[in-house]
Amino acid sequence: MTITKAAILGGGVIGGGWLARLIENGVEVSVYDPDPEAARKLGAVLANADHAYSRLTLAPRGNKGAWRLAGSVAEAVTGAELIVEAVPERLDLKRKVYAEIDAANPIALIASSTSGIMPSDLQAEMTHPGRLLVAHPFNPVYLLPCVELVAGKKTDPANIDRAAAIYEWLGMKPIRVRKEIEAFIADRFLEAVWREGLWLIKDGIGTTQDIDDAIRYGFGLRWAQMGLFETYRLAGGEAGMRHFIAQFGPCLAWPWTKLMNVPELTDELVDMISDQSDAQSGMHSIRELERIRDENLIGIMQVLKVNDWGAGQTLAAYERKLFEQGAVKPAAADLSGPIRTVDRQVPPDWTDYNNHMNEARYGQVFSDATDALMRVIGADSDYIANGLSYFTAEGHIRFIDEVAALEPVYVETQVLGGAGKKMHLFHSFHHADGRLLATGEYLLIHVDLNTRSACEPAPAVAAKLAEVAATHATLVVPEGVGRAVGQKR
Amino acid sequence: MTITKAAILGGGVIGGGWLARLIENGVEVSVYDPDPEAARKLGAVLANADHAYSRLTLAPRGNKGAWRLAGSVAEAVTGAELIVEAVPERLDLKRKVYAEIDAANPIALIASSTSGIMPSDLQAEMTHPGRLLVAHPFNPVYLLPCVELVAGKKTDPANIDRAAAIYEWLGMKPIRVRKEIEAFIADRFLEAVWREGLWLIKDGIGTTQDIDDAIRYGFGLRWAQMGLFETYRLAGGEAGMRHFIAQFGPCLAWPWTKLMNVPELTDELVDMISDQSDAQSGMHSIRELERIRDENLIGIMQVLKVNDWGAGQTLAAYERKLFEQGAVKPAAADLSGPIRTVDRQVPPDWTDYNNHMNEARYGQVFSDATDALMRVIGADSDYIANGLSYFTAEGHIRFIDEVAALEPVYVETQVLGGAGKKMHLFHSFHHADGRLLATGEYLLIHVDLNTRSACEPAPAVAAKLAEVAATHATLVVPEGVGRAVGQKR
Repeated sequence: MTITKAAILGGGVIGGGWLARLIENGVEVSVYDPDPEAARKLGAVLANADHAYSRLTLAPRGNKGAWRLAGSVAEAVTGAELIVEAVPERLDLKRKVYAEIDAANPIALIASSTSGIMPSDLQAEMTHPGRLLVAHPFNPVYLLPCVELVAGKKTDPANIDRAAAIYEWLGMKPIRVRKEIEAFIADRFLEAVWREGLWLIKDGIGTTQDIDDAIRYGFGLRWAQMGLFETYRLAGGEAGMRHFIAQFGPCLAWPWTKLMNVPELTDELVDMISDQSDAQSGMHSIRELERIRDENLIGIMQVLKVNDWGAGQTLAAYERKLFEQGAVKPAAADLSGPIRTVDRQVPPDWTDYNNHMNEARYGQVFSDATDALMRVIGADSDYIANGLSYFTAEGHIRFIDEVAALEPVYVETQVLGGAGKKMHLFHSFHHADGRLLATGEYLLIHVDLNTRSACEPAPAVAAKLAEVAATHATLVVPEGVGRAVGQKR
Repeated sequence: MTITKAAILGGGVIGGGWLARLIENGVEVSVYDPDPEAARKLGAVLANADHAYSRLTLAPRGNKGAWRLAGSVAEAVTGAELIVEAVPERLDLKRKVYAEIDAANPIALIASSTSGIMPSDLQAEMTHPGRLLVAHPFNPVYLLPCVELVAGKKTDPANIDRAAAIYEWLGMKPIRVRKEIEAFIADRFLEAVWREGLWLIKDGIGTTQDIDDAIRYGFGLRWAQMGLFETYRLAGGEAGMRHFIAQFGPCLAWPWTKLMNVPELTDELVDMISDQSDAQSGMHSIRELERIRDENLIGIMQVLKVNDWGAGQTLAAYERKLFEQGAVKPAAADLSGPIRTVDRQVPPDWTDYNNHMNEARYGQVFSDATDALMRVIGADSDYIANGLSYFTAEGHIRFIDEVAALEPVYVETQVLGGAGKKMHLFHSFHHADGRLLATGEYLLIHVDLNTRSACEPAPAVAAKLAEVAATHATLVVPEGVGRAVGQKR
């Protein structure tokens, strides 16, 4: 399920996170937020998100959707297929916004980001309530995959399916809450822990640092990959869940948690928490902490991707989608001359301390170019999924000129040979102004991915490669072909 | 603080985890458990732990401590410096065990693994109570670093320091709970979440799968690296913690969580949970799930190590200890043969969708190796800051074998030439098992960073490079030097 146009009402941390996720996936977005600071705040979230997305997957990033600030709710939502409501948690305010939406756009899906209010309460006074649901995300919205979907009494169930498909397309993991309840699932847990945490601080059992450490050095590591029940299934040993409940169940009657009461947030307690938090984290700015958090989340999700587990599976599916989207259409490519296989800007995280593209990334550019050429001859993601591919056996790069972050660059690829198991390519890496930045000569061998050994390509791929190779054989052999390192000209 | 001899009373999942951690660090251990199945159960935990430790760090593993089953408490604790009590959670049973310890060994530190009972209650009837404390670990004990240390009224505070030093030496993160309280810190949170989870299942809001997913695709990912308070500090935006409390605090009065009551564990509810858990996880055996969990935990901690954060810092400190113990000398000191320039694990984000190191990262490895070689000859960060460096002009890579994420690898670098402005290097990239993964031949030119044009190196660098080049000229020229792409052998 793809969408092309969305609106976001409310430009805070959550609205900004949605904005980043939507434009990263090519959606055009209008944002309405009466805060005069909205543009600056959204810019800060988008800068973090851009940095994060540049490292999140290996796939080519698509074109970003355009976004703009609208002057009113009506202006923002006109023409939108999806309306994200992320205004403050006040029922009266939300209902007022829905009335404006009902008047301006009676058909778009409305997804409230509320973390606690029941959708039946949200939609109670709407003229077109069937399209409203709760889609509750987690900060940072541009990275964390979880989104809780909750239907109200008047929500059309088909719209939950529609929303789930959209969030999957955006790289998320929709969780369908089966019955309406305040705070849904995750925030009920968070509130329980938060209450208990306040008591622990108030009673001097531990500081904010002690409490955070008790989480992140212990069960927090477990919960990044298995949740409460699967973790406990293991704690029951070979007998599993039933045994665990028999063991642990009786402890529930013990007077452990203080959750029956809510501690009063006196000035003294607020000061205590703030001071402890400053002592714990004050050496980093909020911006620094956000970057640290994002780097950690990216690394954790990438590890889980390698292990084919949990949030890593969601990331892998998203990456596959990007690869498919990025595929060069063979029909569109002009194959009579060198083929344009890469066309992009140098990502900022590809550059070193003096802002020049890092040496190793020249190899990345040529690897991307080879992937694109493979797609041209039909060795695409389906072909690879069927167990066949090309592996690079050997490569030679001449580093000719420097290039800075965000400069526009392209690669042209000439097929020097393509017969049997071999494919011989010559990539020329240029600045958009025509300057030659590097050349890369590569020999690839066709392989069976199951045996990891060489084999003939499928007939269609062999034929297409032979056709391109025959055409390119009529072109001038580029300067530099066949060089060894340090060879005299 | 090191110890050489310990006793463990109780050979369940927790006792077994302690056993694995202790013997991995060379401690000799006696275990007492009256269960006739104890040896088999301990063997299963040790097998998992051994698999995990083989992948946890890059450092050489030391000699394992010996362990044996003792015939009684008295036999087990005789001569031990540390006694780990991990018997079932019954105060009468624990007190009986302490009486036996008091009679057989009046001086050893006694660390109870209880997850809830207060140390003052545990030590109340002891003859030598000053040496008892709670040291509460988290499953799997052999991997998770967190251990909560709690003193009772009669505990000698010096023994908390002593215990903290022992646990740090064992690669753990001791957290000193500042005041005695039932269930300490982490388990109070876990119980709160567990109670709420039972309600959510009983009321049909979600299944065990839904609840686990709401955790592991969302806030669980946050909690693996930042805890409750640091995460919320970020949610407050630029204004930090105080702003967050002002925003979130009022919600505490909302009737969200059900924690005031404990749901009754009827047969029906137990069946519901067990059935849902089977549907969620039953396709994996408990043993498989343990392996999956451990792989994920190892990967997450290794990512955090790369990012110098949280549990990764604990792992790094432990790894440093192992390296120091193993007395591995920096290989770069010996310049007479190929120089070890890279020694690391393949980062998870260097691998592609099928978990093999991405082609472009081979160039990264060689770029890192070149940087290391430059440091060896004195072209280090100070030298570069002074406006001089080497730029890569040309490189040739042979891709010989595949390597997966987190595999240990190294590079050896041979200087083929180093005179005037030129430096000619040959890198051999190996798996730690000796397999050759790739070779990289590189020509570098010395440059003035201000003019970006070639110039002679500073005399000290030129002299050092010439010295290494002269020594390496006596070595065998590696196979593959001077190859062009596609050249016949």
